[in-house]
Amino acid sequence: MSALPGTVYLNEEGPREGFQIESAAIPTAAKIELVDRLARTGLRHIQVASFVNPKAVPGMADADAVIRGFTPRPGVHFTGLWLNQRGFERALGHRDRLTIDGSLNLYASAAFLKRNQNRVPAQQLSAQHELVAMYQAAGVSVRRGFITAAFGCNFEGDVPVERVVGLVGDLLAIAAEHGETIDHMGLGDTMAWATPDRVKRVVGAIREKHPDLPLLLHLHDTRGLGIANAYAGLEMGVRMFDTAVAGLGGCPFAGHAGAAGNVCTEDLVFMCEEMGIETGVDLDALIDCAKFAETIVGHPLPGAVMRGGGLRRFREIRRAG
Amino acid sequence: MSALPGTVYLNEEGPREGFQIESAAIPTAAKIELVDRLARTGLRHIQVASFVNPKAVPGMADADAVIRGFTPRPGVHFTGLWLNQRGFERALGHRDRLTIDGSLNLYASAAFLKRNQNRVPAQQLSAQHELVAMYQAAGVSVRRGFITAAFGCNFEGDVPVERVVGLVGDLLAIAAEHGETIDHMGLGDTMAWATPDRVKRVVGAIREKHPDLPLLLHLHDTRGLGIANAYAGLEMGVRMFDTAVAGLGGCPFAGHAGAAGNVCTEDLVFMCEEMGIETGVDLDALIDCAKFAETIVGHPLPGAVMRGGGLRRFREIRRAG
Repeated sequence: MSALPGTVYLNEEGPREGFQIESAAIPTAAKIELVDRLARTGLRHIQVASFVNPKAVPGMADADAVIRGFTPRPGVHFTGLWLNQRGFERALGHRDRLTIDGSLNLYASAAFLKRNQNRVPAQQLSAQHELVAMYQAAGVSVRRGFITAAFGCNFEGDVPVERVVGLVGDLLAIAAEHGETIDHMGLGDTMAWATPDRVKRVVGAIREKHPDLPLLLHLHDTRGLGIANAYAGLEMGVRMFDTAVAGLGGCPFAGHAGAAGNVCTEDLVFMCEEMGIETGVDLDALIDCAKFAETIVGHPLPGAVMRGGGLRRFREIRRAG
Repeated sequence: MSALPGTVYLNEEGPREGFQIESAAIPTAAKIELVDRLARTGLRHIQVASFVNPKAVPGMADADAVIRGFTPRPGVHFTGLWLNQRGFERALGHRDRLTIDGSLNLYASAAFLKRNQNRVPAQQLSAQHELVAMYQAAGVSVRRGFITAAFGCNFEGDVPVERVVGLVGDLLAIAAEHGETIDHMGLGDTMAWATPDRVKRVVGAIREKHPDLPLLLHLHDTRGLGIANAYAGLEMGVRMFDTAVAGLGGCPFAGHAGAAGNVCTEDLVFMCEEMGIETGVDLDALIDCAKFAETIVGHPLPGAVMRGGGLRRFREIRRAG
């Protein structure tokens, strides 16, 4: 039997993943309320918003207001996401409220890179050097590396494991060249190609080359395997996961099939806690947040434990009886 | 890394699990059409209906008509479920169309046994002897054993692994005493207490005592772990699963939280095929069945791959491009 980790660290991305995709306008106050509630569950990392063009992503037009509105809480990192220098500069404007770490990012799919960024692989490598320079000029350390489409790609098909291992090495080398140290490497299952088996192969191959590099899994649930993939990650000793409360970001009933959200935070918390893995999160408080999130978006969200409930109450009934 | 099995055998229970729980009246012809479509996907086992009191389960009032209506297909076992002698006798009336195997069943939770059958554990043991006698009188062989609430129980809490191992031994001994041979043992996660870890512990403990006994997992998805639990089973070499197309039987949005369905057939087929495990099932045909099932019940069903789609088309695009 595999050795599961003793603790995990969850990056809650529900507010960012979720509100960028919802078609209905959600009141800024409701977004702030959700962030504040999440911050009281024991979660230590909450991604609040993304600094993107509001014309492209109307749901993020109030990003600055949301960030100005939430209540900071000691021990909780609140973060934002940016995709370019302009977004980074907006984030810097909230340095007093946000934890701002530099992140490097390579695509494992050339076809997706071409389509999304109109770049070829050599160009994305040089762009990372420019990114480091941008961070250093602002006095921001590079902390996170991320590989997009690490498990497969709708535009390219299967992604060879060796390619992902090579890109991880590239990011580590680029950071080192500039005196920076990446302290964890994210693997993005951007288009939901991962299976438990693929997770194990990719994580295993990276581990072989970089045994001490902490890995993070960013898993989408489009094909229902998010939680199984997370379990495979846990079996490989992965301790960091991007997750979304209630499975925010996914609306499996709206027809945008490619858009299913991250693995659901409370489902993962439930699984971990029941297997003896500490999350630091109060499951009942998190379930309340999930139900609140559903109220805000006004349609069912895909989380399961928010409906099925945890098991503690049954054990308590038994003890009381 | 674990050795996954090369093939799996799926018992499709969607028509039975699903239609017994739906509140709206579903036309008999639609049920028959779903069974016929499922029979053309490559599935080798389809549970069509249960022979229960129509006053208690109105959705099964047309069980006999559904069974008379479907089109038998060589290589496909069509089965029914019964819970008592009267139900068994009704099933016998369809001997020309149904595969009728005897099944023994013990509850791992005394509290649930008391509540559901008003029996104590010693009584359920003697009842198995009577069951064997009933089967033998009808010339039916005992093939399947089943442990209900093998992973935990809402009315009793955690179920000790040793108890489940003991009950498996009891069923094998009872069958042997009567000259019968149980050819697979089902483990029911009746109230969705299983985690991947618990699946491994229970399966591992049974394996230690009965290394050659094929095991079957009957997993409910109430807490979102169905597919992760199935993966844990696969890692332990389990090759048989009860599943439900589209996740039929579960309506996570109707508020009956305890009622989530079996692990979704096409999601499990997708995971298996992508990991190189043969299911014998055509995923695209199965996805069509899942969509048809959703049309029949008139509300969203929880399956994911029916919305997200498989991956074959992306690989084909790539080859064509």
